Amino acid sequence: MRVPLNRESEIPLYQQIEVFLRQGIQSGALLPETRLPASRQLAADLGVNRITVENAYAELEADGLVYRRLGSGTFIAPPFILSAEPGDKSDADKAWPEWQQDLRDQRRFPNLPMQAQLREVSGNTSVISFAEGVSDSRLCPAEEFRKVIQTVLRRDGIEAFSYGDRAGYLPLRTTIAHILANQGIPAHADNILITSGSQQALALVVQLLLKTGEVILVENPTYAGALDLFRSLGLRIVGVPLDEKGMQVDILEELLRDLKPRLIYTIPNFQNPTGTCLSGHRRRQLIALANRYNVPILEDDFVGDLRYDGRAQPALKALDPGGRVIMAGTFSKMLMPGLRVGYLVAEGPVYEQLVAYKRVNDLASSNLVQRSLEAYITVGRYQAHLRRACQFYRKRRNAMVAAVVHHLPANVRFHSPQGGLFLWLRLPEGFSSDELFPLALEEGVAFNPGSLFFLDGIDQGWMRLNFTTNSPEVIESGVKRVGRAIQKLMK
Amino acid sequence: MRVPLNRESEIPLYQQIEVFLRQGIQSGALLPETRLPASRQLAADLGVNRITVENAYAELEADGLVYRRLGSGTFIAPPFILSAEPGDKSDADKAWPEWQQDLRDQRRFPNLPMQAQLREVSGNTSVISFAEGVSDSRLCPAEEFRKVIQTVLRRDGIEAFSYGDRAGYLPLRTTIAHILANQGIPAHADNILITSGSQQALALVVQLLLKTGEVILVENPTYAGALDLFRSLGLRIVGVPLDEKGMQVDILEELLRDLKPRLIYTIPNFQNPTGTCLSGHRRRQLIALANRYNVPILEDDFVGDLRYDGRAQPALKALDPGGRVIMAGTFSKMLMPGLRVGYLVAEGPVYEQLVAYKRVNDLASSNLVQRSLEAYITVGRYQAHLRRACQFYRKRRNAMVAAVVHHLPANVRFHSPQGGLFLWLRLPEGFSSDELFPLALEEGVAFNPGSLFFLDGIDQGWMRLNFTTNSPEVIESGVKRVGRAIQKLMK
Repeated sequence: MRVPLNRESEIPLYQQIEVFLRQGIQSGALLPETRLPASRQLAADLGVNRITVENAYAELEADGLVYRRLGSGTFIAPPFILSAEPGDKSDADKAWPEWQQDLRDQRRFPNLPMQAQLREVSGNTSVISFAEGVSDSRLCPAEEFRKVIQTVLRRDGIEAFSYGDRAGYLPLRTTIAHILANQGIPAHADNILITSGSQQALALVVQLLLKTGEVILVENPTYAGALDLFRSLGLRIVGVPLDEKGMQVDILEELLRDLKPRLIYTIPNFQNPTGTCLSGHRRRQLIALANRYNVPILEDDFVGDLRYDGRAQPALKALDPGGRVIMAGTFSKMLMPGLRVGYLVAEGPVYEQLVAYKRVNDLASSNLVQRSLEAYITVGRYQAHLRRACQFYRKRRNAMVAAVVHHLPANVRFHSPQGGLFLWLRLPEGFSSDELFPLALEEGVAFNPGSLFFLDGIDQGWMRLNFTTNSPEVIESGVKRVGRAIQKLMK
Repeated sequence: MRVPLNRESEIPLYQQIEVFLRQGIQSGALLPETRLPASRQLAADLGVNRITVENAYAELEADGLVYRRLGSGTFIAPPFILSAEPGDKSDADKAWPEWQQDLRDQRRFPNLPMQAQLREVSGNTSVISFAEGVSDSRLCPAEEFRKVIQTVLRRDGIEAFSYGDRAGYLPLRTTIAHILANQGIPAHADNILITSGSQQALALVVQLLLKTGEVILVENPTYAGALDLFRSLGLRIVGVPLDEKGMQVDILEELLRDLKPRLIYTIPNFQNPTGTCLSGHRRRQLIALANRYNVPILEDDFVGDLRYDGRAQPALKALDPGGRVIMAGTFSKMLMPGLRVGYLVAEGPVYEQLVAYKRVNDLASSNLVQRSLEAYITVGRYQAHLRRACQFYRKRRNAMVAAVVHHLPANVRFHSPQGGLFLWLRLPEGFSSDELFPLALEEGVAFNPGSLFFLDGIDQGWMRLNFTTNSPEVIESGVKRVGRAIQKLMK
């Protein structure tokens, strides 16, 4: 035990020890029934006389904070004799240093209260949640994966816990290159960087390429987690509107010319939250514009493979003439979110710098998890899992579309998405999804209000429903509840 | 398979398919013996006539790039008939877009060449390496840890792969709070944020608190991974010199007044690379100064517990009057580097914002690894492991000190460190460790030249030797080799 002693202080050493232990006990940091070090031991550790420690213990015993058990030592007393609350919530009143107060005033994370509310909902089993950002983890092969982890640990031993290759475990990068080749994206293992999920992939690219105050172009609305990231970095976020063919590329050119943005961030497949896909024609236009105006594109392909009908368009990365597009992908939506394995595809100087920048950020992602994923995933297994997931989610999408048609007012507008995770709905003119949200919670259903996705933070009557995480039956009951909440709102 | 088709192009569709596949095969992205989709299937996927796909396949077959196996389909031919090199290294000649060239010119990662060289050495078994940044992974309880992971996966199932609590797995945070309480640091679980190793802990704090061009004060020399991080962010790094009592705090005050830094980064225990410990008196001065000048302190306690002799000083965090010190710790040095579990201890608004900032950076760290670590680590087990590690490393430090005294010239200067991982040596006046490095490699031994740790990137004759990763016998041979290299250098 380290006790901070000030030998230049006028407070006697025994009292310094006593006060230190008293604070530890009263704050809950030292647990009840913990044995304190033997006085001889602590005295040696601190370089003080044994009597000094004995005196400190005696004072604490007199106050009922510790007790002695004959022949076994001194123990922290059980909590009923304690006075102060552990982790006291009077923190708000504390005088934080000025720099901490400044930090609070910056409001870099405007969505914190809404996020806290959604987390609370997520833990409440009586609420049907359409507010998840992920797909159904119950489809995940957890038991198979457990066996794979065993095999890897038996095979690789301590090596599985080393830092490993700084771009990520090479065999996993090779597998990803093959999966991408099957999707029409020509990539090599040495163009791939393993990241901790696609969120880190976005964070690395944006932090490497942009400084505070510089302009980033994004679809408006877009992924809330990306907006939160860009806001936290103090970027100037400029929106490009979408229609049913995705980002309106004709509006883009003007912005490129006038604003000199440093990056275009886009989700071309099953855009989050709108579910739209960028048309093939616009994909080519987008590449040509980015090339002409010397701006990199960050392509977020978070669920590009989850297509239930219609024809796939080539990835922007597949159309890249070389070093123009940086692509981010993930296994979080297809397999398990908590794996935290995503990847970037890039080439040229930016690839080398992304590898170096990942290194200064967190050295490496979990080697064990990368090795296990590599042992689990083969191109064939990935595609079998994908087919199965698509079958499930197609049914669930159909169930949600049917339920919306049956149970919501006819003037609620939406397009049925051809893939992805989300249905994007608009309430009748003049009604707010932020106002609907608490009414829906009362009815026992949750969704994401549009305000999370728009740059101005105003919902404009939109709402996002995840159709993949519940069974068709639960989807139907949930949408009914949304219907009842809308009735209340419109009264 | 997604093939990018341009229906507005004058190139016939069959040719577009053919060219696409040809490139995939020649680049190595499509593996030999992979079966191509059945023509009927690919035609349906792409929305083209089956004949179109058949024609494309026929062209590839004519060129020997694919072959048909009767009744089982079309396969990529084995590589001996391929002409182009996979992953062609002519990349350097390629015309990268201008923004990529600009990126290369910024030289944000000046140590990349040295790091590449050290990685190469690390894979060479004929070289004795004193250049590692970690402790001996062979002391790690890999087999016990394997069993714990099994238990956790059986117990928690798919839950172990969820995103989990955004500040980290609560029971693990509670355990860490108890370990810290035993070190005299009063912390609660809700003051602790789990990070991906202590490198991410540093990165989060620095990126949250500082913008490009702002001033950070550091010990000079300091941890190379921190310098690489600060440089990559374009911070203005200002050094405070050290003596045998650690950072020279009397020089600090002037810098605080004149430069208005946004952060003080310090390693008070077994400083990297010098191995010095900040004296108790200076610790109190440092806290008082940071308080007076309204500057946060980032305390990096990467090996604070690895003490082999002498008396421990209280952590800065233990002296913090409240919300002034942010502390970073890790399990990488004590257990396994590849675990990637570190933590921050902070309170007040900065804690909440660090949690939110971690979230926008990578959502969460691997839940499975956190749960397994929690199941493995108890306060008692941690301390038992610590005692064992200290016994081992004390012997190895003694072995290195003895070897240096025996085998290196008497005018090589050093202090024997009381703990940590490193011995910090100075060559005789006028000799350079950068020049020694290649000579040492010739002799079959590697170390870290001082240039990695000094702000100006000049070695000043210093070198860092890790004494924990090799047995006493190997240490002795390695130091002998260093001795021979020094002889060569001094000739």
